[in-house]
Amino acid sequence: MRPDSTGVTLSPTPRTTVGRLRERGATDRAALYDVLDTGLVCHVGFVREDAPIVLPTGYGRIDDTLYIHGSTGARWLREGPVCVTVTHLDGIVYARSVFHFSMNYRSAVVLADARTVTDEAERRAGLEAIVEHLAPGSWGYARVPSRKEMAATVVLAVDLAEASVKIRTGPPGDDAEDITDEVWAGVVPLSSGFGVPRPDVHVPAGAGPPPHVHTR
Amino acid sequence: MRPDSTGVTLSPTPRTTVGRLRERGATDRAALYDVLDTGLVCHVGFVREDAPIVLPTGYGRIDDTLYIHGSTGARWLREGPVCVTVTHLDGIVYARSVFHFSMNYRSAVVLADARTVTDEAERRAGLEAIVEHLAPGSWGYARVPSRKEMAATVVLAVDLAEASVKIRTGPPGDDAEDITDEVWAGVVPLSSGFGVPRPDVHVPAGAGPPPHVHTR
Repeated sequence: MRPDSTGVTLSPTPRTTVGRLRERGATDRAALYDVLDTGLVCHVGFVREDAPIVLPTGYGRIDDTLYIHGSTGARWLREGPVCVTVTHLDGIVYARSVFHFSMNYRSAVVLADARTVTDEAERRAGLEAIVEHLAPGSWGYARVPSRKEMAATVVLAVDLAEASVKIRTGPPGDDAEDITDEVWAGVVPLSSGFGVPRPDVHVPAGAGPPPHVHTR
Repeated sequence: MRPDSTGVTLSPTPRTTVGRLRERGATDRAALYDVLDTGLVCHVGFVREDAPIVLPTGYGRIDDTLYIHGSTGARWLREGPVCVTVTHLDGIVYARSVFHFSMNYRSAVVLADARTVTDEAERRAGLEAIVEHLAPGSWGYARVPSRKEMAATVVLAVDLAEASVKIRTGPPGDDAEDITDEVWAGVVPLSSGFGVPRPDVHVPAGAGPPPHVHTR
């Protein structure tokens, strides 16, 4: 329950400059890529009528650009200021005082002006990045988008120039005077994994998934 | 990769009224509580200088109020419009066409004006809810907050009146003409779980965690 706040930036600007707990920052761009590339869902924030909206969605990365997509009918997919956050929860930190309860985690926060991708080659590349991020190997296996499907899809590009990464690892940060033999403290790790693939009802009996499909 | 957008609201207002894919909504409040109560991290969105910021944090619920907290030094913890989103990712949906790739998930999106809690009893109750949400049984086990720790902590209350829940389950929604025996499609489930607790270095050898500590 220790009050945490901001992180460390890769490219400090006034709005991403660190507030507190600098030691939790990971300043290199490799850490940003790692958090993004090992996540599956991002939370995209945008502003509508002066209020924030945060929605979960998939994403993909090509170099220093993140791509997100959606239907042309989705009201939230518009150019303008966005914040894209990806979080991995790695553990629950049990301390001797509730004040020092915490979580071990890795998070990336990206601030950008989202750009609607109009170039058809970049649109396809962005969609391929999104699909390959979610389900590697699938773009070359499943049917690629038709002209009609492409027309129904909006692709937004989010520049990774302004980003921060924050990582907490390790044991609880208890005050020395709280440490006694009587109170247990430590970390309970959290992890996620894939289960056994469930074939669609129309898949022939006995036809297992191709090798590219995620399995544990 | 099927373009998804909004959900179904519990209390429709112009900004939470459904856009598309109504069938994915779960309209009852029990679904909202379930999504919130089984999550561990929320993503809080707020607006600073006309731009959105989205940060991960813990939370707790008492009836129709969600509590979040942080340091008095955290610049993001202020009254005003917020969006609190909790997402569970349940599976990767492999389709026959990349257009219909998707995720199975459950998400709750709460829109509110965050209120700074000033009543000391509600502040303690909110913090207890946060700790008990993260690590049930801990508030009665670990040392409760001192006056100084309470003074260093901001507690915000978020009303659950305006909220939406969206749930996707089941197989891919392929077009009939794409279904062939040659292409595998289905769902790869995703789940998360707790690992073996790692005691802090000062815990006596052989002292296992108390029964309330999360274990698989």
